[in-house]
Amino acid sequence: VKKESNKVIKVEAKIDGKVYIIKGNASEEHIKAVAEYVDKKIKMITKNRPNLSRSKATVLAALNITDELFRLNREYEELLNLLDEGDSNS
Amino acid sequence: VKKESNKVIKVEAKIDGKVYIIKGNASEEHIKAVAEYVDKKIKMITKNRPNLSRSKATVLAALNITDELFRLNREYEELLNLLDEGDSNS
Repeated sequence: VKKESNKVIKVEAKIDGKVYIIKGNASEEHIKAVAEYVDKKIKMITKNRPNLSRSKATVLAALNITDELFRLNREYEELLNLLDEGDSNS
Repeated sequence: VKKESNKVIKVEAKIDGKVYIIKGNASEEHIKAVAEYVDKKIKMITKNRPNLSRSKATVLAALNITDELFRLNREYEELLNLLDEGDSNS
């Protein structure tokens, strides 16, 4: 596993029509992909509900992404548990 | 793995001081935990930067959560790859 550098970089990205300067110690590619993901989620939500306010759409996007995070986390834990069971049988 | 019910439920949750009715086919417990997570993230971000607007704080929270999702996804993929390698050696 390649260790990520601790150098903080700044990346400019447009989210929901506004420009944000995002600071992070990840790669520029990673930060841009993260910003693009949030932007797409907000667009997806407002597309289906054009009357929704922008702030509500952003909250819904955050809820949506957190739901994905929790589900993936559960799958990850299940996979780790399977590995543990495998170890104890060997 | 227990299959989740397809019944859509509505859960009321407060996020950043506003009440949201969140619809989902997950359990009430899951939806509440998701809402609480987003609320906590926004609070954490505004705590450190009291002058930040609420909409910007929500966007930053969404970026933060997406960053976690991407990192966990990478770890999950790495774990799956390790398992594949283990299979080919056996």
